[in-house]
Amino acid sequence: KEPFVLIAGPCVIESREMALETASTLKNITDKLGIPFVFKSSYDKANRSSHESFRGPGLDEGLDILAEVKDTLDIPVLSDVHSPEEAEIAGRVLDIIQIPAFLCRQTDLVLAVGETKKIANVKKGQFLAPWDIDQVVEKLESTGNHKILLTERGASFGYNNLVSDFRSLVRMAETGYPVVFDVTHSVQLPGAAGDSSGGEKEYAPALARAATAVGISSLFIETHPNPAEALSDSATMIPVDKMENLLKEIKAFDDLKKGI
Amino acid sequence: KEPFVLIAGPCVIESREMALETASTLKNITDKLGIPFVFKSSYDKANRSSHESFRGPGLDEGLDILAEVKDTLDIPVLSDVHSPEEAEIAGRVLDIIQIPAFLCRQTDLVLAVGETKKIANVKKGQFLAPWDIDQVVEKLESTGNHKILLTERGASFGYNNLVSDFRSLVRMAETGYPVVFDVTHSVQLPGAAGDSSGGEKEYAPALARAATAVGISSLFIETHPNPAEALSDSATMIPVDKMENLLKEIKAFDDLKKGI
Amino acid sequence: KEPFVLIAGPCVIESREMALETASTLKNITDKLGIPFVFKSSYDKANRSSHESFRGPGLDEGLDILAEVKDTLDIPVLSDVHSPEEAEIAGRVLDIIQIPAFLCRQTDLVLAVGETKKIANVKKGQFLAPWDIDQVVEKLESTGNHKILLTERGASFGYNNLVSDFRSLVRMAETGYPVVFDVTHSVQLPGAAGDSSGGEKEYAPALARAATAVGISSLFIETHPNPAEALSDSATMIPVDKMENLLKEIKAFDDLKKGI
Amino acid sequence: KEPFVLIAGPCVIESREMALETASTLKNITDKLGIPFVFKSSYDKANRSSHESFRGPGLDEGLDILAEVKDTLDIPVLSDVHSPEEAEIAGRVLDIIQIPAFLCRQTDLVLAVGETKKIANVKKGQFLAPWDIDQVVEKLESTGNHKILLTERGASFGYNNLVSDFRSLVRMAETGYPVVFDVTHSVQLPGAAGDSSGGEKEYAPALARAATAVGISSLFIETHPNPAEALSDSATMIPVDKMENLLKEIKAFDDLKKGI
Repeated sequence: KEPFVLIAGPCVIESREMALETASTLKNITDKLGIPFVFKSSYDKANRSSHESFRGPGLDEGLDILAEVKDTLDIPVLSDVHSPEEAEIAGRVLDIIQIPAFLCRQTDLVLAVGETKKIANVKKGQFLAPWDIDQVVEKLESTGNHKILLTERGASFGYNNLVSDFRSLVRMAETGYPVVFDVTHSVQLPGAAGDSSGGEKEYAPALARAATAVGISSLFIETHPNPAEALSDSATMIPVDKMENLLKEIKAFDDLKKGI
Repeated sequence: KEPFVLIAGPCVIESREMALETASTLKNITDKLGIPFVFKSSYDKANRSSHESFRGPGLDEGLDILAEVKDTLDIPVLSDVHSPEEAEIAGRVLDIIQIPAFLCRQTDLVLAVGETKKIANVKKGQFLAPWDIDQVVEKLESTGNHKILLTERGASFGYNNLVSDFRSLVRMAETGYPVVFDVTHSVQLPGAAGDSSGGEKEYAPALARAATAVGISSLFIETHPNPAEALSDSATMIPVDKMENLLKEIKAFDDLKKGI
Repeated sequence: KEPFVLIAGPCVIESREMALETASTLKNITDKLGIPFVFKSSYDKANRSSHESFRGPGLDEGLDILAEVKDTLDIPVLSDVHSPEEAEIAGRVLDIIQIPAFLCRQTDLVLAVGETKKIANVKKGQFLAPWDIDQVVEKLESTGNHKILLTERGASFGYNNLVSDFRSLVRMAETGYPVVFDVTHSVQLPGAAGDSSGGEKEYAPALARAATAVGISSLFIETHPNPAEALSDSATMIPVDKMENLLKEIKAFDDLKKGI
Repeated sequence: KEPFVLIAGPCVIESREMALETASTLKNITDKLGIPFVFKSSYDKANRSSHESFRGPGLDEGLDILAEVKDTLDIPVLSDVHSPEEAEIAGRVLDIIQIPAFLCRQTDLVLAVGETKKIANVKKGQFLAPWDIDQVVEKLESTGNHKILLTERGASFGYNNLVSDFRSLVRMAETGYPVVFDVTHSVQLPGAAGDSSGGEKEYAPALARAATAVGISSLFIETHPNPAEALSDSATMIPVDKMENLLKEIKAFDDLKKGI
């Protein structure tokens, strides 16, 4: 039995320094706690509520920064892609390529991610049932790629609200692939802030504990040195300086679940 | 910090012997594990999907059986009531009086339960938001009764499905009252079997672990010597002979959460 | 083909004068428009969000007022009941006995309403699928009473919101019984005003037109001389002086649908 | 007041002949009924449940066929695009460029469609609230393009189900832009057939009437000479030979609503 892998980092790459610093801090924390760590940050927020919101450094500069994080700190990196072309290019740098929830049904994108032969992390769309993920898995498998992660990030529940259905973690694990619980997007209130998404960060620790008690392979947590000033997802990101305590708490539940 | 209280028993009192035997078995298990135990069984299933389904022994015989369970085994007993009159009568025997989910907004019933001065366990309606429970609490408090339990048993999620929103456990605890997670009703699929409710018992242990990891005061679990033959809720009840292992597993998570 | 029946009146009987006056005004309007009219008003709001809210005159005085409305204006009257005992008593006065949505699964209440041999109007619970109503119908039919109306009043949709699923009108009509669309409760936002329900009255005319275009036997509309001052449901009731134009508009759609 | 515009055609272009024939039949019907007609068919089904399903002729051949339909029959044509590059190319042929529901938040795609200066038809995502469309509208408007259509195609409602919230038609119309009701996708049961979507075609006429009674600018209806044999959406498409009667019926409601 392996401890959970932490996939974490700021929602978007705000700058080279910020990415490196945050990654370095998280690496120190996870090394100390014995938690395998993958750095996550987006180079392009392609589906912001508002077109006036910050999107990130873009593909080229973003990959360059992620490559530097990867090399400097010797850690795997994850980012999300939005087109088959991006998948191919990003696959040269990334260890894990993420398919965004809204795009999880776009066949060409799914196949292109599969073709990279890198690990594919599929975020289950807010509009999908847990068993609907089987078809996405089949698309990926058709490329010969069986390195697949399946992420729960909440299901649509009325308007401007998501609900985390923990049955989903169990059902998706029946595919045989590792299941990830996306803690901070699961507490998002999509569109609830009018021109951006709101969130209920206060529920993140409870849902993270719950997910480890159900049983997961990985937790996905967005974190930022100063969420109030963050350029995206400020309502849901966890302050970096709260991460050590949070991870320590969660790890105890994960260890218990796995008999570690 | 106190360990969780187990509220458990067969959905409905099928016979005096069966009630006594199940209660006795559960008492032995919980004594061994150091888990406080409340016996739950209904004397009347007043809202069956079909009017042809078994309803139970009725108020008088039912209370008589529950009184015998209580006296013989020296354990508190819980049952649910359906009218102000029943509340008054049942209050003479029961330690905890439960307000059913569909009836949680019926003011007279809520007030009558409050007036008994016994502990009131409110099941949050499938149609209520977590914060809507505040108004039910106020109704109870207006009787001067502050012995209140609040139970999460799933929220309506499309048709013939419920979802357990674990944010609800945190939100309801903000009232200051103990929160109960109803494990087996939370995995019900209401009406999904046509003339009765279906269920997904296989998710019960995972949701029970999740609830203790979030943090609860009590777990509510319906259990039966032979669920396949049960006269109600056969799709969701846990076999009595699986309870010891389930409780052992859950208790570890509860102990961890509470630092016991 | 018959024109739709209007079931209308103030949510709760605020006073004898107000009930009589409103009924009289509505009778004049519906006579003019050739719409059969049933006066609706509750003598007891038994499930208010808050226990401090006004509940009405109670069973005895309420039935007395409804009997006066019935006799004075020669119109049928409808009210809702909350227990088997009330059903029996109210059945002596009422032409249509309504089973509230939250109570539509309470077998004893449903059977008692059936036993009155009066017309039973079942409000489909917010937690039921359209086909779940079949079991409620069977309960009523088991009493030998086949005078049944089935009302759609919205389904739970996330928290503090309802959605009107118009497929439900078609599906419930497959039972062979007349289907009612409850216009004003369908635009309720339950619990959204904190200690009471909010509502979006502005959508009522659109949903009423939609329901007649789908095809219904009856529309249920709560109306009040001055909704802003109403003692319940002020967020959803239609001002009485808007009813004539609204009904005229709706009747045109109903006539078209039915080829009248 | 203008009659509603019919946007109709087979879900996917199965062949040149089939597209031309269906378009020609629909043109004859709509000419006879005085209904403005836009031919819709997809050249690429980019988000099929299964990667083994038929996707269509692709961009080049598809646009070629749509251009032929347009020129031969002198009617506007609509198809959906999946990337900024496609939008630019498709914009040379199409009169209306459709943004698929799953992609309605992809900023680059939305902006690229806006830049074509053609009419943009946004399908509101199943995961969006009606008011969330305002942000999509702003993205389009930022390109200087104000030729916008907003389409309701159902909201996620539990698993494998959609619900048509008719409040949405009213709310989206408050943007000032024409609102389209997508009749046949609104009766889809996404993923309900396991490796493809199911549907409840039998509700399509009722929902179409309801939408016109609420008030819309356009109806979107997928139709096929023989739905049972169709290469996609066979569970929801209306047989072409049922279209004349359906449109006649719907037009009467639209005329009534608009006082035509």
